[in-house]
Order: sequence, then C-alpha cells, then structure tokens
Amino acid sequence: MLTLHYNPLTVAPTIAIVLEELGLDYTAVLVDFVTKAQAAPAHLALNPKGRVPVLVTDAGVLTETGAILYWLAAVHGPHLVPADAFQAARMRETMYYLAATLHVNFAHALRGARWADRQASWDDMTAKAPETFAASLAYLEGHLDLAPFVVGDGYTLADPWLFVLTAFASRLKIDVADYPKLAAHQAMMNDRASVQAARAKGVLA
Amino acid sequence: MLTLHYNPLTVAPTIAIVLEELGLDYTAVLVDFVTKAQAAPAHLALNPKGRVPVLVTDAGVLTETGAILYWLAAVHGPHLVPADAFQAARMRETMYYLAATLHVNFAHALRGARWADRQASWDDMTAKAPETFAASLAYLEGHLDLAPFVVGDGYTLADPWLFVLTAFASRLKIDVADYPKLAAHQAMMNDRASVQAARAKGVLA
Repeated sequence: MLTLHYNPLTVAPTIAIVLEELGLDYTAVLVDFVTKAQAAPAHLALNPKGRVPVLVTDAGVLTETGAILYWLAAVHGPHLVPADAFQAARMRETMYYLAATLHVNFAHALRGARWADRQASWDDMTAKAPETFAASLAYLEGHLDLAPFVVGDGYTLADPWLFVLTAFASRLKIDVADYPKLAAHQAMMNDRASVQAARAKGVLA
Repeated sequence: MLTLHYNPLTVAPTIAIVLEELGLDYTAVLVDFVTKAQAAPAHLALNPKGRVPVLVTDAGVLTETGAILYWLAAVHGPHLVPADAFQAARMRETMYYLAATLHVNFAHALRGARWADRQASWDDMTAKAPETFAASLAYLEGHLDLAPFVVGDGYTLADPWLFVLTAFASRLKIDVADYPKLAAHQAMMNDRASVQAARAKGVLA
C-alpha cells in the first residue's frame, strides 16, 4: 500500500510519474496549499517539515523527492538507475543539482520569507529568480546528455524530476523553447503514458 | 587515481573524510577562494558550476557532494550504505535535507548575491541565516536517530556530511551544545581517525 501526499504545483508529481512508470497502485492525497493543509497537524504528523512529497509505505514514511525516488527504484524498479556506477553517479549529480540549485532558485520567486524578513528583500528575490532559474536551465542545456535522456540512452530517475522542474519555467515567464534540448526532453516526456496518467489523475498540473 | 578539489571552509571536507574512512589514496588540491580560484578557467574546466567538491576519477569527473559520496560507496565502500532499502532511503532523506535545506540556509549568510541584487537584501538574509540554520538543527536534533549515527547503529554516508555542515554553526554564532544529540555526534566524529587524518592534511578546517 502506497499513499502519495502531493500538490500539483510542487515537485511532488515527480513521484506520481515514477509510480505510474512502474505500474504501482497508489492513493494520491491532495495537500491543499490554499487552505494551508501543509501546515495542518495531520500533515505535520506525517512530515514535520510541512512539505510535499510524502510517500507512506508499508515500511514507513519517506520525505524528500530524491530519497523517495531512491526507494522506489531500490524496491520496485532497479532498471531506473544505470547499471554502471559512474553513470549512476552522474544521474545523482543531476538529481542533487535539481534539488539544491534549480529548485532553490525557483523557490526564491515565491518563498523569500524562508530566508529574509523584509518585503523589499522578497521583491528583490522574486525579481531575480527568472535570471537564476534561466542560468540553471542554460547549465543543464549545455552539460546534460539529453540524447534524449538525462544520462545516456535510458530513462532514469532524473528524467521525471528534470521534466517537472523545467516545466516551472513558464511560471517565471521563461520559454523552454529557448533551450532546444530541454524543450525536446519536455516533449518526449509529455508523450509518455506515465506522464499522461499522472495528468489524467490531476496529480500533475 | 583520485584527486579531490576542495576548500576547507566548504562542504568538500566531507569527501576527504570518506576517502580517509575507506583508506583510499588521493591527492587533495586546494581551491583558494581568496584568489577566486573557483572561478578561474582551470577550475571551470573541471566544474563549470565553479564549486567544490570535485572528484576526478579514472572514470571521469564528478561534482555534487551527494553524487560523489554515492560513487565512493558504490565502487569502494558498500558498507557505508545500509543494506535495508528503507534504512538506505532514510539515509538519502537526510542527505537531501542537508544539501537542499541546511546548506542552503547557511549559504544565505554569505552568498545572498546568488538570489538577490541589493545590499539591503543581502544584509536581511545574513541577519536571518542564524534563525533558519538553527531551525534546521532543531529539526535534525528532533528527528534523526543519532544513536549515535544518523541512521540506526552504523556509520553511513550521511554522518560525515552532517558532521561537516553542523560545524558551520559556530560561524553563525550558534552553539551546537544547545543540541545535545548533535553535539554528541560532533564529538564522536571528531574522535574518528578519518576526521583526524583529514584535519592533519589541512583538508578539514
């Protein structure tokens, strides 16, 4: 039994796409940010960090996108990690960059209050976020294989994560078409049955 | 042949500690931030992101602490990852939190220019960083096993990373003694031969 707590405007749909990719049964529970459900006691009991995704498994509760993806691959889909250790490390290199740089750059557009106290600082961060997000997209465009996948010629855990975060670009008025390899990756991922299934269920916006 | 590009004031000593823990031969190359060596062509050729750590291996160049740790464990030290998949995922959960939350909170003390353009915004971030870093330490104190290790009763990849980042607290005038389990973890790690060896080589401050 797997239960995914998600919000479609976050990175959480990454997990749904992989659940669909693996053909696993799961229940999807919307964490409504409009009603601040992420800060309600029921959610904090699952994840004291007040974030999504959260995956409830028979073994226990997991948070952090990268850790949930790791567990899904380890238990249900080892083919989602390259067999070669160096290629697998390159996949992780992208995953850590997505978590700690690309996503963090995006967060400054909306969540400046995490790191500063004044409205003027938040406005400054919001104004700069498109520049830092675009710089990260340029780095990814220039340095990932994307031929067509993030690492080599196989679909791995890094692909759905890159797909979900790259799609945030439009919220910063950035046109992914300016990054041809990333745009091709977006198009390829949109065609996959797993992405379409997650979207049909409303988990992916 | 392994070459670690590091700076002792960054997270890069984490990699040196694990190299020492595994008894691997390596060359340590200081990337001097005073002379902005991290932005010099020689370093950017290795890591276009202009950061450390970078590990040069016979298989290729790796960046991102979490990816380098993954590779070291996969190739040289599988005992540094819990055998149980759920426990291994809990280790990854901490690793992603360290990379994307604790380290990011610290970075706002010094690196506000990454995310905002105005001096007043940087000052605001610098002023708030001790609060957010302390909140992250409180989360870790409250939710990690730390009995005595991050996950269960064995030393894993998460331990040296937690050790190195927790030590940043003093730079924000935070006393780790206020977090008894983290303080005990710091003391335990300081006693390990691997930490002492990294410090003797000047890789760890």
